[in-house]
Amino acid sequence: MQLELSQFPVATARPEVRALSESRIRQVANAAMGREDVLPFWFGEPDGVTPLAIREAAKQSLDAGDTFYGPTLGLPALRESLAGYLSRLHRPVDVARIAITNSGVNGLMLACQAILSPGDRVVAVVPLWPNLVEIPVILGAVVDRVALSLNPQSQRWHLDLDALLARLTPGTRAVLINSPNNPTGWVMSAEDQARLLAHCRHHRIWILSDEAYERLVFQPTDSTSAPSMLDIAHPDDALIVANTFSKTWQMTGWRLGWLVTPLELIGDLGKLIEFNTSCAPTFIQKAGVVAIETGEPDLAAFRQRLIAGRETLLTALQAIPGITAGIPDGAMYAFFKLEGTHDSVALAQALVQTVGLGLAPGSAFGPEGEGWLRWCFARPPALLLDGVRRLKKSIAREA
Amino acid sequence: MQLELSQFPVATARPEVRALSESRIRQVANAAMGREDVLPFWFGEPDGVTPLAIREAAKQSLDAGDTFYGPTLGLPALRESLAGYLSRLHRPVDVARIAITNSGVNGLMLACQAILSPGDRVVAVVPLWPNLVEIPVILGAVVDRVALSLNPQSQRWHLDLDALLARLTPGTRAVLINSPNNPTGWVMSAEDQARLLAHCRHHRIWILSDEAYERLVFQPTDSTSAPSMLDIAHPDDALIVANTFSKTWQMTGWRLGWLVTPLELIGDLGKLIEFNTSCAPTFIQKAGVVAIETGEPDLAAFRQRLIAGRETLLTALQAIPGITAGIPDGAMYAFFKLEGTHDSVALAQALVQTVGLGLAPGSAFGPEGEGWLRWCFARPPALLLDGVRRLKKSIAREA
Repeated sequence: MQLELSQFPVATARPEVRALSESRIRQVANAAMGREDVLPFWFGEPDGVTPLAIREAAKQSLDAGDTFYGPTLGLPALRESLAGYLSRLHRPVDVARIAITNSGVNGLMLACQAILSPGDRVVAVVPLWPNLVEIPVILGAVVDRVALSLNPQSQRWHLDLDALLARLTPGTRAVLINSPNNPTGWVMSAEDQARLLAHCRHHRIWILSDEAYERLVFQPTDSTSAPSMLDIAHPDDALIVANTFSKTWQMTGWRLGWLVTPLELIGDLGKLIEFNTSCAPTFIQKAGVVAIETGEPDLAAFRQRLIAGRETLLTALQAIPGITAGIPDGAMYAFFKLEGTHDSVALAQALVQTVGLGLAPGSAFGPEGEGWLRWCFARPPALLLDGVRRLKKSIAREA
Repeated sequence: MQLELSQFPVATARPEVRALSESRIRQVANAAMGREDVLPFWFGEPDGVTPLAIREAAKQSLDAGDTFYGPTLGLPALRESLAGYLSRLHRPVDVARIAITNSGVNGLMLACQAILSPGDRVVAVVPLWPNLVEIPVILGAVVDRVALSLNPQSQRWHLDLDALLARLTPGTRAVLINSPNNPTGWVMSAEDQARLLAHCRHHRIWILSDEAYERLVFQPTDSTSAPSMLDIAHPDDALIVANTFSKTWQMTGWRLGWLVTPLELIGDLGKLIEFNTSCAPTFIQKAGVVAIETGEPDLAAFRQRLIAGRETLLTALQAIPGITAGIPDGAMYAFFKLEGTHDSVALAQALVQTVGLGLAPGSAFGPEGEGWLRWCFARPPALLLDGVRRLKKSIAREA
């Protein structure tokens, strides 16, 4: 007997994929559907269009007919540009250790495919943007979490390094660090990086370092880059550094990133790139070359806007009774708690509905973020202050 | 005692990744490094630049400042265009079942992430372009293979459907079909598709159908699309159809593709897109809309060039004693055997070195392809004939 199709509900994803978190930021953003009066501070995205010179480079490449497959590891010109850029910022980086990826998150997926087997244990420092902990889960790894805490004296987020090292036991496959951190703005110190590296060398643990915000750093005020694992590591260390053009050069929509890996890994990484996306578009990579070669003045101006936005927003938030906000030393977010908040998705949805204020719920960044909200300050001060006014209005209503 | 770094060779990929095949086509292409007299027929790529209107659409989008994140499942305008396009070619396809991907291969990776768990068994019809069988391996699945054979009477590649169905036992998770097939040009018949679908429904087996070449079909000569699973399947069937802009609209370098899935799967697929690349660039998707809406005349001209190239190449090859070539009913390759060939990589390397002829070794498409060579005929007839002259010269030398 041929059974009916309806008796076979097979056309669903495997359980591990069904169990992946839905984006809680999208859950909140969906509450704003059809409304035009909402101020959107929820997504992690600069508010400026990509600088003209970068866009012109892509257009020229399209005019020149660069519409064919490119090399798997990326255009030599872009890899060379990046090698020079990274060697200027950090220690010398051999071009052969650099792979171009189709976005920063794509680089993290590739890195995890390269090193994580099902059942592997990884440890992540949290709260953390969700992708970095969900990618290992897709690949069957188990993610353990070590939480940052807010130091009330310094008003900075703090990592208990000894607690982290204690969890990095022999047999742990990798530690996942995102510094400067999304969502908290925490920046790992060079001293902590050195101790982590020594520990991971000793116990043969991979370090996967997501340095997407390394150029968006505010402390000390004259610094142009956060401490990077590339400042201290040996080329053969079990270290993969992931980065992206998205934040530094305001190129979120371009989907261009890179990895720095040990030389030993790069051939296998090339195979994985072939089987994931095969290559990044050549006309996008040529735009990337121009971003690196000409982008510093635009980046400096962007940092100045971020410094102004950070000052405006943090000062205004800290003046509101009942609000606790850590001071972010990097990235582009204020992460803050409103006294009495236990359900950040419900609060964020209510803020959209009652006052048109669009913030990301802290629980989007893990259970450690429950009760908190994330506010992207890559926006003009006047817009940020309008947002703060709306927040105050909402608090007044509730009181 | 602190051990030395050198005692810890950990900075390599996991064994499954190290064991992935290196591209044998690249092995051959590397033999041509530094030579300018090689005729390259090895890669699967149309030889024309992407049509102007498509490139202009991307440039206009860049001018308009479309440099921000887009929706995870793709621009509504592109998904709507594709729904209309697919509904005209096949049965009505609901826009909600369509997801935009960062290339065709990216779509296959996403589809496999959605449905394959470690240890799952999948069955592939081979010879086959390597990516489709390596992706499941990356995810820990086991790939079984059913080989096409060349029918000497019809000179067509033939699938023994009963043999395939016998291997699709209960508990098999998925069957992987690429029709029109790369490298053989085999096109699965509508009758075989219907029997496969009925069998897979009965045994609850997913069908992953890579239809990248569906518009590049030569038999019957007035057909504009190969038989597609979308012609016969129910929207709720456990079927994922993968496709790409690469071949149909000569957009290989753009890295744009799509998936059609059951509605039940699309939400989970969206999560996987978020964690793989997050979205495709908006300016590339807007070019995709123009490709669909205005691309039919260019596609018709491209098909005419393919028909001329196929006729020229196959006629010339079949006139050479000792050569066996199947007639390709689709795609853009001649797949042929030179009598006495047992090592296709060595032969392809020798052809590069002695006569400057660049062909893909058949073993790149699995052990079933050993002894064969793949020749992309998306090239002008004069160039193809120059290649055939070189092949003859090589054969004469060996004789």
